[in-house]
Amino acid sequence: MFLPKSFEELVKNLSIFPGVGEKTAERYVYSLIDRDEEEIENLSKSLINFKKNIKYCERCGCLSDYDICDICSNNRRDNSIICIVEDSKSVFSIEKTQKYKGYYHVLNGLISPIEGINPEDLNIPSLLNRITDNVKEIVIALNPSIEGEVTSMYIQKILEQKNVKVSRLSYGIPIGSDIEYLDPIMMSKALEDRKVISS
Amino acid sequence: MFLPKSFEELVKNLSIFPGVGEKTAERYVYSLIDRDEEEIENLSKSLINFKKNIKYCERCGCLSDYDICDICSNNRRDNSIICIVEDSKSVFSIEKTQKYKGYYHVLNGLISPIEGINPEDLNIPSLLNRITDNVKEIVIALNPSIEGEVTSMYIQKILEQKNVKVSRLSYGIPIGSDIEYLDPIMMSKALEDRKVISS
Repeated sequence: MFLPKSFEELVKNLSIFPGVGEKTAERYVYSLIDRDEEEIENLSKSLINFKKNIKYCERCGCLSDYDICDICSNNRRDNSIICIVEDSKSVFSIEKTQKYKGYYHVLNGLISPIEGINPEDLNIPSLLNRITDNVKEIVIALNPSIEGEVTSMYIQKILEQKNVKVSRLSYGIPIGSDIEYLDPIMMSKALEDRKVISS
Repeated sequence: MFLPKSFEELVKNLSIFPGVGEKTAERYVYSLIDRDEEEIENLSKSLINFKKNIKYCERCGCLSDYDICDICSNNRRDNSIICIVEDSKSVFSIEKTQKYKGYYHVLNGLISPIEGINPEDLNIPSLLNRITDNVKEIVIALNPSIEGEVTSMYIQKILEQKNVKVSRLSYGIPIGSDIEYLDPIMMSKALEDRKVISS
């Protein structure tokens, strides 16, 4: 097939992104023709920069540019509470709420016997060492999936030996949803977790 | 918002691609964590390489890594026929058929009075110089849109002074389509362009 080599190479290399096939990659490449050289250089550099700098925080396991992430190195946060999440994405979305002031512990995965992912494959062993006397509460913020439940139960079990309160995010009807269309599982969870508003 | 700086930069720079917003860019960045350094370096390099090398062929106006593109510098092609297309994408898709052996002339746009695009903004003036005595046919392969029609009519008019046959791609029912669902314009074009198969 006739295509400029530099074009073809770029199409091939762009397909490392998820969901980007030949057609999408070609569309991306065509769009670059009208872009400034500077913008493309910036993109090129930030790719290298990202791969060179990004690492997992040695304390909590979250993605960071430093050995110890910004959250773990912030002394002003509440050290009595640790939130357990599946991955860094969860950290970023909880941080967006600006409601949580404690620290995090990022598992970087969930236990999954089917996929052969065991507790020791995840950032679980280091969790126990982080639970010192000042830690009063562990919030489990994992997806309400089978893997999430299994992981949650495993963590609850290993935390039994520690004198610490364990909580999880509340399940319930999503804000903006319509009760009529809620699926039965969601609805029964919302009933279970119902909150007294007056008594 | 808390996000590693290298992460945030890359998200921002990835949004130069069409249709890539923050969410998609974030998904792309997360996917890079598990990629080899080499793959990312290749992508980074090919971006720079593309922008540095890609240019418009001085003869036909097609995208190329060279001043004169591979097609124009190929002496084995049929020099009696020139196909006029809107952009390089059209060249690449015609080349994929392996049915056309002539040369191309890429307008890099279409005449559009509404958008203020005039013939002199396009690669039209150089077309006349390319029509030497050995050129016998000009195939117009433009989109069947208003702009395509206007451009096609303009080209037909300026070619009147040259002793050359002008043709256009046939309109008709798309292969694999269902006649029942064909829109009336398409259907009337297919009737107009009907082909005698026996007489």
